[in-house]
Amino acid sequence: MQSVGIVAPQSRHFAEPLPLRSGAQLRDYTLVYETYGTLNADKSNAVLVCHALNASHHVAGTHQGAEKSVGWWDNLVGPGKPLDTHRFYVICVNNPGSCFGSTGPMHINPVTGKPYGADFPVLTVEDWVDAQARLLDAMGITQLAAVLGGSLGGMQALGWSLRYPDRLRHCIAIATAPNLSAQNIAFNEVARRAIVTDPDFHGGHFYEHGVIPKRGLRVARMIGHITYLSDDAMEEKFGRCMKADTLNYSTQAIEFEIESYLRYQGDKFSDYFDANTYLLITRALDYFDPARDHHGDLTAAFAKATCQFQLVSFTTDWRFSPARSREIVKALLDNKHRVSYAEIEAPHGHDAFLLDDPRYHNLLRATFDNIAKETADVKPVMAFKGVAR
Amino acid sequence: MQSVGIVAPQSRHFAEPLPLRSGAQLRDYTLVYETYGTLNADKSNAVLVCHALNASHHVAGTHQGAEKSVGWWDNLVGPGKPLDTHRFYVICVNNPGSCFGSTGPMHINPVTGKPYGADFPVLTVEDWVDAQARLLDAMGITQLAAVLGGSLGGMQALGWSLRYPDRLRHCIAIATAPNLSAQNIAFNEVARRAIVTDPDFHGGHFYEHGVIPKRGLRVARMIGHITYLSDDAMEEKFGRCMKADTLNYSTQAIEFEIESYLRYQGDKFSDYFDANTYLLITRALDYFDPARDHHGDLTAAFAKATCQFQLVSFTTDWRFSPARSREIVKALLDNKHRVSYAEIEAPHGHDAFLLDDPRYHNLLRATFDNIAKETADVKPVMAFKGVAR
Repeated sequence: MQSVGIVAPQSRHFAEPLPLRSGAQLRDYTLVYETYGTLNADKSNAVLVCHALNASHHVAGTHQGAEKSVGWWDNLVGPGKPLDTHRFYVICVNNPGSCFGSTGPMHINPVTGKPYGADFPVLTVEDWVDAQARLLDAMGITQLAAVLGGSLGGMQALGWSLRYPDRLRHCIAIATAPNLSAQNIAFNEVARRAIVTDPDFHGGHFYEHGVIPKRGLRVARMIGHITYLSDDAMEEKFGRCMKADTLNYSTQAIEFEIESYLRYQGDKFSDYFDANTYLLITRALDYFDPARDHHGDLTAAFAKATCQFQLVSFTTDWRFSPARSREIVKALLDNKHRVSYAEIEAPHGHDAFLLDDPRYHNLLRATFDNIAKETADVKPVMAFKGVAR
Repeated sequence: MQSVGIVAPQSRHFAEPLPLRSGAQLRDYTLVYETYGTLNADKSNAVLVCHALNASHHVAGTHQGAEKSVGWWDNLVGPGKPLDTHRFYVICVNNPGSCFGSTGPMHINPVTGKPYGADFPVLTVEDWVDAQARLLDAMGITQLAAVLGGSLGGMQALGWSLRYPDRLRHCIAIATAPNLSAQNIAFNEVARRAIVTDPDFHGGHFYEHGVIPKRGLRVARMIGHITYLSDDAMEEKFGRCMKADTLNYSTQAIEFEIESYLRYQGDKFSDYFDANTYLLITRALDYFDPARDHHGDLTAAFAKATCQFQLVSFTTDWRFSPARSREIVKALLDNKHRVSYAEIEAPHGHDAFLLDDPRYHNLLRATFDNIAKETADVKPVMAFKGVAR
């Protein structure tokens, strides 16, 4: 299996405002995206990948001159890979409000001439779906072969099935949930409080002060990392391993490997992620709740869907447990929708959706094989020996 | 069942330094404690209760003029209650390093003449056990009928069985663990980082600056609360209940009840708890690991114990799950120690050990009934109609 190789992000500017669920609008915005593979003649082989909290449009391949810049789902997307770029035209859009190129809180608010900061409008999963649909309009793609996403990306895939039911044939939602539980919201809220109470946050207008609320971002990321890994995976990877043979008897020195790991992850994250983006994206997670418009009835919410569904969960995922996927499956079955569900025994917790567990990848490979078969014009668009299974 | 009524803390000063596991020592310290019931003639009816992270010596009853100051385990300890103060003389000591009266980081360091702050020596569970033993020496109590504790208090009870095997007849360790898992340490570490990176922490010497690192304490407490409650209990209590009928579409306003609850708990905690104490106590949790001195062999660690054990865990406790209690039970059985173990199906997570679940309290009542029976001289020391079951 090969990499898609060197890739470059593209961007498109939208002059017409995007109306948002909140009643506000996003005016004059840019979307940054990447594509892999080739769009076929009748534009029927497009697959939209939706990114989660801290990821970007950069799904596969590497950027010129940056060997380590491997895309976040490179193990899945590429020539001969489960989502085979010889067959499919893969698109990923950096969602507005994010911090990887699309219009976000660090960009200039046309109303004030200063960075949006905390004034950036609060976005929802549905707003992102709308923004993605506009990009597809501009590309002339009326129907997607599939929308695929894990975690928050899975919520966007579900959102597509409800908001544009006739614009996708398959919805593949992995390690996701029909809404956040109280515990999920609680973790988000602690992370947000850590950020907004950091004195360097300056009410969200820290750009103007030339500072970054790194303390808050570090704590937010450390909390996130605990919830992404399973208890068992963390135990296996770190256990009670010490940094040294003897104890320091200190409350601030690093004694355990797990402390070192978390601090490193926190430091790294605070160097590249935007604090306002973290607030916006966790809030979009909190708000996602398709049943809300149907008096809490998830079955009623999914009545309008028409595509085929593939749900996947992982046994040790305690952030979005299999039980949450089963709620979705039940609502789909209640509607007699076509749905397939796989609960994969994997030790890695929520992070499993990003890893290349063979059963998981074989399942997605089979799913995309089937999608390719039913899509008349989806044939390999480049010759590549040994791609077919 | 009655309350023990109005109680008053006592205190005792110790001039002789307490040598600590770290090699440092605590010199010139005071222990604050409370007692309930009456010590019998041969001093055989004493039960030591050990407190957990944020609790104090104030286990039962109320303080004069403060009606709401009900002790943290008042549902368990009192006349006619499972730990019956008509039969037992109950003692609880505020551990040194804490912030409820015993010598701690907010007190004057005799070496510098300033508050200890971050220079307060790092204490271990074993050091607390030693301090408690010294108080019992001073009280002339050579052997305890039982040592009882939940969570970190359970670790102290286990510590007693190993450090002073002939000074207790029963060890009752509830909702505890033989050591912290990587995930447990991870949560502690995030809480500590939130505190020490708060600019008001001033390297632990904030007393001299007239400030309190409240932001860090709030975040620490919010994280703690998430881990004390089970996912299900949080869902049942809060779910996705909103503060208002309409959404605010804000990242900082409170939308969900769970956010309101966590912020309230964080605020309340930051008003009364000491930041250095939080660091010290979480570190003592991290360090507790009786198997460490025995090449990781918990069975070898418990070889020296001689008392009878009662272990209790709660099915929904994900902080110290039943599996962790079972590790202790196995090590005790390997040694052919007398041990009884109850795994109680309770929905409340780790917090269950503080609640009055009938099965849980009936179990402890039976345990203490048996302890009373086998203790020849433990008879009701006050007449009280209807106390006997």
